[in-house]
Amino acid sequence: MGKGKLTEQLVSLVVETGETEAKPAFAIGRQGLLDFLSAAWKGKAQRETDRLLRYVSGSGQSLLLASEQGASAELSALYNGYLGHYLDYDDVNQTIRGHPSTVLYPALLSVASLRPVSGRRFLAAYVIGVEIMARLARVMGKAHYRRGFHNTATLGVLAGAMAVGYLLQLDNEKLLNAMGIAAAQVSGLRLNFGTECKPLQAGIAAQKGVQAVLLAELGITASHTALDGDKGLLSLYGNGIRADTAEILLGNWGKKWELCNTGLWFKLYPFCSAASHIADSAKQLYQRGGFSPEEIQKVALFFPPGGDAALIHRRPATGEEGRFSAEYVAAVGLNGLSYTLENFSSKPVSAYLQQFMERIERRYDDAVIPAKTALPPGRFGIVQLYLTNGGIRENRTDTPKGSPGNPLTAEEQYQKLQACCPAEIAEKLPDEIKVLDNISDMSGLIQILKTEISAN
Amino acid sequence: MGKGKLTEQLVSLVVETGETEAKPAFAIGRQGLLDFLSAAWKGKAQRETDRLLRYVSGSGQSLLLASEQGASAELSALYNGYLGHYLDYDDVNQTIRGHPSTVLYPALLSVASLRPVSGRRFLAAYVIGVEIMARLARVMGKAHYRRGFHNTATLGVLAGAMAVGYLLQLDNEKLLNAMGIAAAQVSGLRLNFGTECKPLQAGIAAQKGVQAVLLAELGITASHTALDGDKGLLSLYGNGIRADTAEILLGNWGKKWELCNTGLWFKLYPFCSAASHIADSAKQLYQRGGFSPEEIQKVALFFPPGGDAALIHRRPATGEEGRFSAEYVAAVGLNGLSYTLENFSSKPVSAYLQQFMERIERRYDDAVIPAKTALPPGRFGIVQLYLTNGGIRENRTDTPKGSPGNPLTAEEQYQKLQACCPAEIAEKLPDEIKVLDNISDMSGLIQILKTEISAN
Repeated sequence: MGKGKLTEQLVSLVVETGETEAKPAFAIGRQGLLDFLSAAWKGKAQRETDRLLRYVSGSGQSLLLASEQGASAELSALYNGYLGHYLDYDDVNQTIRGHPSTVLYPALLSVASLRPVSGRRFLAAYVIGVEIMARLARVMGKAHYRRGFHNTATLGVLAGAMAVGYLLQLDNEKLLNAMGIAAAQVSGLRLNFGTECKPLQAGIAAQKGVQAVLLAELGITASHTALDGDKGLLSLYGNGIRADTAEILLGNWGKKWELCNTGLWFKLYPFCSAASHIADSAKQLYQRGGFSPEEIQKVALFFPPGGDAALIHRRPATGEEGRFSAEYVAAVGLNGLSYTLENFSSKPVSAYLQQFMERIERRYDDAVIPAKTALPPGRFGIVQLYLTNGGIRENRTDTPKGSPGNPLTAEEQYQKLQACCPAEIAEKLPDEIKVLDNISDMSGLIQILKTEISAN
Repeated sequence: MGKGKLTEQLVSLVVETGETEAKPAFAIGRQGLLDFLSAAWKGKAQRETDRLLRYVSGSGQSLLLASEQGASAELSALYNGYLGHYLDYDDVNQTIRGHPSTVLYPALLSVASLRPVSGRRFLAAYVIGVEIMARLARVMGKAHYRRGFHNTATLGVLAGAMAVGYLLQLDNEKLLNAMGIAAAQVSGLRLNFGTECKPLQAGIAAQKGVQAVLLAELGITASHTALDGDKGLLSLYGNGIRADTAEILLGNWGKKWELCNTGLWFKLYPFCSAASHIADSAKQLYQRGGFSPEEIQKVALFFPPGGDAALIHRRPATGEEGRFSAEYVAAVGLNGLSYTLENFSSKPVSAYLQQFMERIERRYDDAVIPAKTALPPGRFGIVQLYLTNGGIRENRTDTPKGSPGNPLTAEEQYQKLQACCPAEIAEKLPDEIKVLDNISDMSGLIQILKTEISAN
């Protein structure tokens, strides 16, 4: 490690990163952009999101996805981040234990739609953003999430500020101020999972990250040691400064980007990825057949201890709460219902599924040995059925479909895009994004993203 | 206590508070408004704050203090809160251990300048905001501040949201959502003390409180148990839920308002109130005379343990950092310099004062018995001088000038207003504010607050 405070060193690494250094991660970055836009477009199609559109529109010229109207940069970031996360259908990174793209891309697009930036710098800024979000997650430690913080939001503010600061080529001094201003806004609660405030928290993180940079650009000063010391972020929100903190936060910068290492998890289903193992297992049990749902007397869902922390609803009242319910996801799958949006909406859970969930319980087994290929590492999901005839059925999932160990094919990703976007957009977007790192001006892409389509 | 969760009960208390119930605290509320406006007007006169004015102006029609231009409600709250706290010259409440008015009044004015509200509802909303900020401070406990959180910012977001929600007469359901959205934004670092990010944090708290209410008004949902449980705010940021939490948070609501109890501390000097005891002692020693500064060999500043926590700079480089330095304040006072703005600006500390501060050290003495009249309770400040001739001088302050136990006279408060505002404003404001609780429409006051005065 170099000398000096952690904050100063991290900011120097960002400022000094060349655009081409980030190139190895551009391909996955482009995939992330396409997937974010898929999820956001589908979010836009939910009429509840129109309320926020009316709130933000007219405040400036920055991009509002799928709208000819504009907003201020901060409110553009708020709105597009909200859209991207509205259905919990956007990508996840396992190290972050959260959703990088729905914070970083809205933050970057809000500025890229107002000022001339190259596609290469845009992608490099995203790579740096994910990198910082993941390294901060590592140094904060698991306790940060466990205590109740929402990593997407808390880490997203800082990563968003650094990504936008890089995009706008802030100098060292101003980027340090941006870090101090962003650090003053680290917040976000897991308690809000299963309400519209969860996607809002992603949008707010993007908004705060952008605002921190724009205020720092004005010359407003802040602490240059936001991460350091016993009053700094790492102490206040995490495990404090340890012997290996500098190495984890700063070591081997740019040698192997997080995006090339743990990658992104693209979702096939619109619910929390922590329920994916259970979802795949339940679906496969149903498809395998040999029993009818009425014959199921009891269902046991097995997790490693803490593996279900994100799944805060055991008896969800609505499909929306069901996005964070292992019981609901299992009930949907075991009854042969589809993991599609209509079953995860704000509508009340049917009386039938409510009764079915009464038969489901969670168990924790630290004697189960996680697969070496498990994603996230150490995770698994087992669905065990006890039938009225005394029979037992069981299925286990270690690497759910969509996770980096069991990725979507290009065809499946395109199908997701088609299922989310109007045909006109689905046709144009992949080609435009494919060449992103070679274009000096992003206005063509931004123009496509503004396309207003009334029916979807 | 009633039944149900803490969050639900608190929100019900707010919704059900009648405007006239808050009346006993209106007089001190009006004083708080006048003092906030004094501090903000002086902040406006600092040319550095023009940067933020340029940033926010043009985004809407809401009040920007001393400007004909307007901003969106959120950015109005940001700007006016920044102005009010820019010089650390605004009021303090000892229970809150922070600055209520510079968050609450900007938040309330941002909305009151867009929609018709009565002066009485406006003042009642302020009384409720202070009440919530203080009760939250009590249940969070001292550890919240000690760990490094900035109470003005963290508690201000929640109190600001509740105050604005009350002003706009949100129903129970929407005010609960506003609380959940605000809770997701609780942040603010003491680490930023001594930089422009400290006043910014007050403004950001106001901005976030206003935004939380406006988003909840749209119908966006959030957790209704934001304060409750082991993942809720009181656990995450404070001491958790204890046997007496409900009583402290909810008990005797409206029986004796915090404003009538601990009141407001109006500052005579533009620096952190935690340095006031030292300031008064040093000034009195200088005035008493009998030594010249060159004869001071050593200075010991005595505090109760932890009483100097806010004074984070021991060797400040600038007058701005000196606002949070017991050493700097003592050095200014002992050398007969004045506690006026020119000595607490962004200019570097003189070489003379830097050398003088080398002779100053802090000591903690828990054997000293705090005065019964001490403000805040348990606090004192002793300045002890060791002279080259072997002599020792000592002076102790328990209730500094401006604190509720040693209040400014009406004349002194008016002098502060005159020193801060243009004569035209200083003449009109007191009369306008005096009748505030009897006016059905605040547009007259808002119009005065927009008065643009080029030179000051």
